Amino acid sequence: MNRFKDLLSEVVIIGVGMAKFGKFPDRPVADIGQEAVVEALKDAQIDKKEIEAAYCGTARAGRIVGQRILKDIGLTRIPIVNNENACSSGATAFREACIAVGAGLYDTALVIGVERLSKIVKGVIPLDRDDVEVNQGLTMPALYAMRAQRYMHDYSLTREQLALVAVKSRKNAALNPKSQFQEPVTVEQVLNSRMVADPFTLLMCCPNGDGAAAAIICRKDKAAKYTTKPIFVRSSVLNSGYYETGFRDMTSPEITVRAAREAYETAGLGPEDISIAEVHDAFVISELLYYEALGFCGRGEAGKLITEGQTEINGRIPVNTDGGLLSKGHPLGATGVSQIAEVVWQLRNQAGPRQVNNPRVGLTHCTGGGLSGLDHGACTINILSL
Amino acid sequence: MNRFKDLLSEVVIIGVGMAKFGKFPDRPVADIGQEAVVEALKDAQIDKKEIEAAYCGTARAGRIVGQRILKDIGLTRIPIVNNENACSSGATAFREACIAVGAGLYDTALVIGVERLSKIVKGVIPLDRDDVEVNQGLTMPALYAMRAQRYMHDYSLTREQLALVAVKSRKNAALNPKSQFQEPVTVEQVLNSRMVADPFTLLMCCPNGDGAAAAIICRKDKAAKYTTKPIFVRSSVLNSGYYETGFRDMTSPEITVRAAREAYETAGLGPEDISIAEVHDAFVISELLYYEALGFCGRGEAGKLITEGQTEINGRIPVNTDGGLLSKGHPLGATGVSQIAEVVWQLRNQAGPRQVNNPRVGLTHCTGGGLSGLDHGACTINILSL
Repeated sequence: MNRFKDLLSEVVIIGVGMAKFGKFPDRPVADIGQEAVVEALKDAQIDKKEIEAAYCGTARAGRIVGQRILKDIGLTRIPIVNNENACSSGATAFREACIAVGAGLYDTALVIGVERLSKIVKGVIPLDRDDVEVNQGLTMPALYAMRAQRYMHDYSLTREQLALVAVKSRKNAALNPKSQFQEPVTVEQVLNSRMVADPFTLLMCCPNGDGAAAAIICRKDKAAKYTTKPIFVRSSVLNSGYYETGFRDMTSPEITVRAAREAYETAGLGPEDISIAEVHDAFVISELLYYEALGFCGRGEAGKLITEGQTEINGRIPVNTDGGLLSKGHPLGATGVSQIAEVVWQLRNQAGPRQVNNPRVGLTHCTGGGLSGLDHGACTINILSL
Repeated sequence: MNRFKDLLSEVVIIGVGMAKFGKFPDRPVADIGQEAVVEALKDAQIDKKEIEAAYCGTARAGRIVGQRILKDIGLTRIPIVNNENACSSGATAFREACIAVGAGLYDTALVIGVERLSKIVKGVIPLDRDDVEVNQGLTMPALYAMRAQRYMHDYSLTREQLALVAVKSRKNAALNPKSQFQEPVTVEQVLNSRMVADPFTLLMCCPNGDGAAAAIICRKDKAAKYTTKPIFVRSSVLNSGYYETGFRDMTSPEITVRAAREAYETAGLGPEDISIAEVHDAFVISELLYYEALGFCGRGEAGKLITEGQTEINGRIPVNTDGGLLSKGHPLGATGVSQIAEVVWQLRNQAGPRQVNNPRVGLTHCTGGGLSGLDHGACTINILSL
């Protein structure tokens, strides 16, 4: 673990960028990615010629998408690695880039997360054909709905409390011009939208969509050339699930609990040090489960956190200030990198109307790849700081 | 470059494995991958519990394929990264693993390359929908056929010489029980098979197929625990193409020429030091172009090399002793790792009837991702030695 800490201590983020999330079925994937990359290059005030390698995360944008994005930007002849890890694809690309830069292989690297889900040919889900669970109907909404039912039973969580997560999400998203949805909603609107998988109504589920985000990292000792406010990478964890028969705690996502422990240990920080967090709120219950898994409160206390407004922008521990997956959208590969962009903007006090009061440390969390349903694919947690 | 040399000097290969290549449309991808992983674990005499991370290369096997393969093996809770780089997917995964182990992040890592092309739903090629060249008919066979035509014109190469590449391939493959095709063919049979893209007949094109290969790498100072014959990684290069308008040398694949220069420089070796090579013979002309790009002969001399038998198993510089892509098959993500397996077997004198006489240094080469047609996606070259 300390080996990774030493390696990461050499890495800083010098720029980020993001394309507006939404549904753009006629826009080429490369074009969406380019928007984010161009913004990140500008933000870092770095010439493209100084980028030494690129890592691109995508789950479904097709082959060599990093190359397709960078070709027309003229960022050619460098090593380009494409990473796939379902919902954690972008965050995995970020981590791989950190390893290479931390190891001293490159002084600078570009990270891209990109996806276009609005134009996927129906019926073609290569994973699912071999996946017993999904073939039996255990899709993501169904799985998280079961977890929600269990949580409601165990901890007396109400449907209204579930709805509050969506209400907070939209409230924040209304302050984020890059979010897919930007209209505030009420508890009643959330509860009255059509049922998807009991207890989830439509507004309790994240939309899919298209989007991209980018980040530029560099060696700490080279950062002064580009920025006066480098963001430090204190931790960047990736892990995978645990599948033994009979292992199931429906309301505690083991993969995230374990990743959080590793992330805090590597950073030498604890949940009490986190000023702002981006968590994987694919469904309203997800955000609540991850409050607990990440240590922001004890087990069974997440309902209290959301009800008391502790995770609002002006709360004790603001979560998903950008609207999160529920409102910003969830273009799989883009999500993890867009979370990093939001944390960087917040740490730099550049988040405009949704700015949190002087955050010092931010956490990003993605988890996905629903093998056996329960987030058993890949979980990534990054801790970033001033 | 020297930073990479230092990093790689800490990395050795301690085991390899390979599933038989062929067409197995009803076999789950995970099952194909598991065959290779189990063989590699056994070869390295390593307990699965000692594997600290996994890197899986695939172009089309669907999401989180590494996780799907490792779940049933019980290799869980470790970081698993999936890499995509078209035909270089497996070799990219190998390189990423080398970086992480070389950086000291892990003592051991598993590399997997896997693909199942025999059961891809037709008409769904995400890349191609945005790709101007492919939409105009510039598919891989067409592109390489143009290169072949140009080469034949420039250097008076004959169709018979092209056919000799396929004949050599099948001759070697007949000695490889894991090859997709194993029946020897004659020049006449090659020339008389049906036309695909002039001058290529069917037997001048690699088949697609299914397969997997695996390799286990570890820190040099830990290798003695597992093997008395570690294989050293002298170089592991990844690069991408060059797209400026008007840039075209049809008979010299620039991306490979550049990668070879980097690979030799990192290794501190030259083409004269290579005892055995696995090159990306997707079409018969490819092998000939790469003889030259890799420096095994001068420009225009590849026809002489094949005609004189210099690249036969008992020749000066044996190439594709396992049958190469042309006979062994080309399950995209699996290919690069299977090349590494072949070189490891050869360097250990374990290649049975196709064993080369005491090879010391082996080279593997993959290139693909036909943006703008000319291998502009990703080229990987590894140099391995005793």
